[in-house]
Amino acid sequence: MTEATWERRHVLSLADFTAAELETVTQTAVSFRDVLSRRTRKVPALQGLVVTNMFFEPSTRTRSSFELAAKRLSADVLNFAPGTSSLTKGETILDTAKTYLAMGTNLMVIRHQDAGVPQTIADEMDRLQSGVGVLNGGDGLHAHPSQALLDLFTLALSLNPDQPTSQALAGLKIAIVGDILHSRVARSNLWALTACGADVHLAAPPTLLPPGFAEAFMRQSPLPIHRQVVQHSRLAPALENADFVMTLRLQKERMTQHRLPSLREYHAEFGLTRNRLNACEPNVKLLHPGPTNRGVEISSDLMDDPALSLISEQVTNGVAVRMALLYLMGVGKGE
Amino acid sequence: MTEATWERRHVLSLADFTAAELETVTQTAVSFRDVLSRRTRKVPALQGLVVTNMFFEPSTRTRSSFELAAKRLSADVLNFAPGTSSLTKGETILDTAKTYLAMGTNLMVIRHQDAGVPQTIADEMDRLQSGVGVLNGGDGLHAHPSQALLDLFTLALSLNPDQPTSQALAGLKIAIVGDILHSRVARSNLWALTACGADVHLAAPPTLLPPGFAEAFMRQSPLPIHRQVVQHSRLAPALENADFVMTLRLQKERMTQHRLPSLREYHAEFGLTRNRLNACEPNVKLLHPGPTNRGVEISSDLMDDPALSLISEQVTNGVAVRMALLYLMGVGKGE
Amino acid sequence: MTEATWERRHVLSLADFTAAELETVTQTAVSFRDVLSRRTRKVPALQGLVVTNMFFEPSTRTRSSFELAAKRLSADVLNFAPGTSSLTKGETILDTAKTYLAMGTNLMVIRHQDAGVPQTIADEMDRLQSGVGVLNGGDGLHAHPSQALLDLFTLALSLNPDQPTSQALAGLKIAIVGDILHSRVARSNLWALTACGADVHLAAPPTLLPPGFAEAFMRQSPLPIHRQVVQHSRLAPALENADFVMTLRLQKERMTQHRLPSLREYHAEFGLTRNRLNACEPNVKLLHPGPTNRGVEISSDLMDDPALSLISEQVTNGVAVRMALLYLMGVGKGE
Repeated sequence: MTEATWERRHVLSLADFTAAELETVTQTAVSFRDVLSRRTRKVPALQGLVVTNMFFEPSTRTRSSFELAAKRLSADVLNFAPGTSSLTKGETILDTAKTYLAMGTNLMVIRHQDAGVPQTIADEMDRLQSGVGVLNGGDGLHAHPSQALLDLFTLALSLNPDQPTSQALAGLKIAIVGDILHSRVARSNLWALTACGADVHLAAPPTLLPPGFAEAFMRQSPLPIHRQVVQHSRLAPALENADFVMTLRLQKERMTQHRLPSLREYHAEFGLTRNRLNACEPNVKLLHPGPTNRGVEISSDLMDDPALSLISEQVTNGVAVRMALLYLMGVGKGE
Repeated sequence: MTEATWERRHVLSLADFTAAELETVTQTAVSFRDVLSRRTRKVPALQGLVVTNMFFEPSTRTRSSFELAAKRLSADVLNFAPGTSSLTKGETILDTAKTYLAMGTNLMVIRHQDAGVPQTIADEMDRLQSGVGVLNGGDGLHAHPSQALLDLFTLALSLNPDQPTSQALAGLKIAIVGDILHSRVARSNLWALTACGADVHLAAPPTLLPPGFAEAFMRQSPLPIHRQVVQHSRLAPALENADFVMTLRLQKERMTQHRLPSLREYHAEFGLTRNRLNACEPNVKLLHPGPTNRGVEISSDLMDDPALSLISEQVTNGVAVRMALLYLMGVGKGE
Repeated sequence: MTEATWERRHVLSLADFTAAELETVTQTAVSFRDVLSRRTRKVPALQGLVVTNMFFEPSTRTRSSFELAAKRLSADVLNFAPGTSSLTKGETILDTAKTYLAMGTNLMVIRHQDAGVPQTIADEMDRLQSGVGVLNGGDGLHAHPSQALLDLFTLALSLNPDQPTSQALAGLKIAIVGDILHSRVARSNLWALTACGADVHLAAPPTLLPPGFAEAFMRQSPLPIHRQVVQHSRLAPALENADFVMTLRLQKERMTQHRLPSLREYHAEFGLTRNRLNACEPNVKLLHPGPTNRGVEISSDLMDDPALSLISEQVTNGVAVRMALLYLMGVGKGE
């Protein structure tokens, strides 16, 4: 395994990830995907290290994925459950993080409903010269880097199962459909996909994708963006000749916020159906970060069609990519 | 350890378990009971495999037993907690199971308040040719196979501690007392005990054991039943010359459903007391699946009398039997 | 590692701990603190043993510390979560404990809101000749021995990082400030500190430290107390020439019980601030069992000053001390 281009202590956002770093994660994930297919399925890489999952926003699925990744690297795992925690006793989030640091945590996975919490904790860990690495497990509407990295790995693996590389994405058209405005997954994917040279087309009703969103995104980029991000208020132009289509989960609370008339109407205009995929490239594949609302953002038959859906692959690759991230961040610690 | 007669991928019910299969589980549990009494207490049999406990119906006791069994076989364990899960986000149970499959789960233990959920998940796992084994950890009023198997092992061990065998049950009289109508434990025990050639006598008030229950049960059997199942609306005939008495937990909500007049009256008519045991065989022993209502279905002094109660033995044997089941279902996977 | 002076099966209170026993814990913790600073960080001492955390009163922080300590000793850990437990089904606490005993638990860590529960469980474990060791993880207002032992170890380490010994506390002045009446931490510290020959000065408003508290404490002692415990209703005399100051968490519910006028007033009279520390010895250090209310019992800047605060050290030492306790209680079991 190579860490040639890895200098990061934390993984908080993909905004400043270079194509070389994305490729390092991809290649490291390739190695771990191989490990997972062997009998042993464990490597001693992080033996003796402590990975603490601090999920202030609950998510069994993502927490399980990180927990399994850490265990497969032979780390010890602590799970912090906010419901029964000192937070209810008035302790600050930073003090909670410092408590787990003092217990011996080497790597923290932080998920929080507010954007910026993982960054704040990472800053504090650096200020204390702790050496702890912080991995953003999803923060507010800001970022969800491990999800975008597993999406990227899934795309690379789909394009070339024998020699997957993130470079294969260059020049492809990727459609992202759904509640982009409220999606940290979409934001993290935008950084990763454009860095790899893909064209990204966004499609959603204007209440979920306001005019100017794509331009604003490109202006924020700390790195030069070589490819276009294009936004559409209809589905058809996004799907046209698309190589991959990524649908996002529709939060049902958007209805009560008057952003959508009804689930049925949303499905009629933006739901993925077999018929609509005819406009895409013949080998088009579908992604979804899960959990899905069957029959809302995607029809049930598409989701279950192994010739089209990469959704299960995404979950499987999630463990390999999270192993790769924990490995890259953790190896060398404690020596 | 022999798996001579083991061909099952799943353990969902004991309705079609042959006497040979019951004996295979018993003998495998004997081996693991020996392991548990040694210093090491761990075997590497399932190293690298993932056992996921999906307890949609919470039960710390049963979940801990499965968790410990899996750890003693060196498996990695994931616990799915419905309270903080994607289910609240509208994901279906099958999608949840498929997510854990995609993460790399090899064996699933499913507990659910609705009958049939483990079967549905097992069918889906087979349809996907996943190779995953599903173990029913208790579903609605349908079945609780690991409980009945640990009861069987406890009976066999009680009859002959040096060479326990399920065959020793042939011709014995076992009384099952309590809320049989609402008990998945009773149903699973009926299959196992009759397959081993025991006579089973059921006793409960008619509201908890409707007329015709025993006949209906025997008509359902996919295998020929060689022994009688007899039902009684009074306790005395069930206890007469019984070799073992199994009491069931009385759900207190039965009162509010007007199935029982009062706990006191229930105890007066069907509660096990020392005096009533005089009608049984001299060496009679008592079982209870727990948790118990002391002084309702069983008097406190009986429960704590090591000469009579096998209740602690049942819990201890639960770990050995669950190790046996996970081992039989899991060995060979991933090779 | 020496267990020269260790004869205890349980650790329930420090009331009858001798200075020699306190030193045994301290020296064992020294060894484990060394282990924790090495690459491996794990020892196989308790391999095959089961440590069950039974936290009837929730505490993520303390539970994580015990869990990590047990894992570092290579034990298997079960966590009992009361919310989803049989207790809601009416099972008694003793039956819950016996269930975990029957599953194969070797060591139990018990935390409960009522004083005496760990003792009751320990008595039952002894009555059953189970050999199980019970460690009090905090019970009501009674005791929190592992917290006081980690405080003691932290003091010893602060006084002499190269050769820490509890004997170095002899003749020092330790101030304990805050809600002493409702603090099991204060009570356990009083036993440990006086046994090591320290002078302890308590300071709190009379509603949190009633007249006669110190005398009543000393009268209770089963061992002769060689040093004075002095109580003050003002902060100044407690801080004067103090070598260490320990502040306690202020439970905000004390306000609603009319024991305190306001947090602001409490901070004005008893809150630790930099200015007030001028009265202490020049090398004074601060302890707090956590979680803290910043700006109430201690000012934020003091808490974060590494030259003054031992709070992070306490958390780190908590893992080493809990490893020491589990090791001393568990080694030899199951052989």
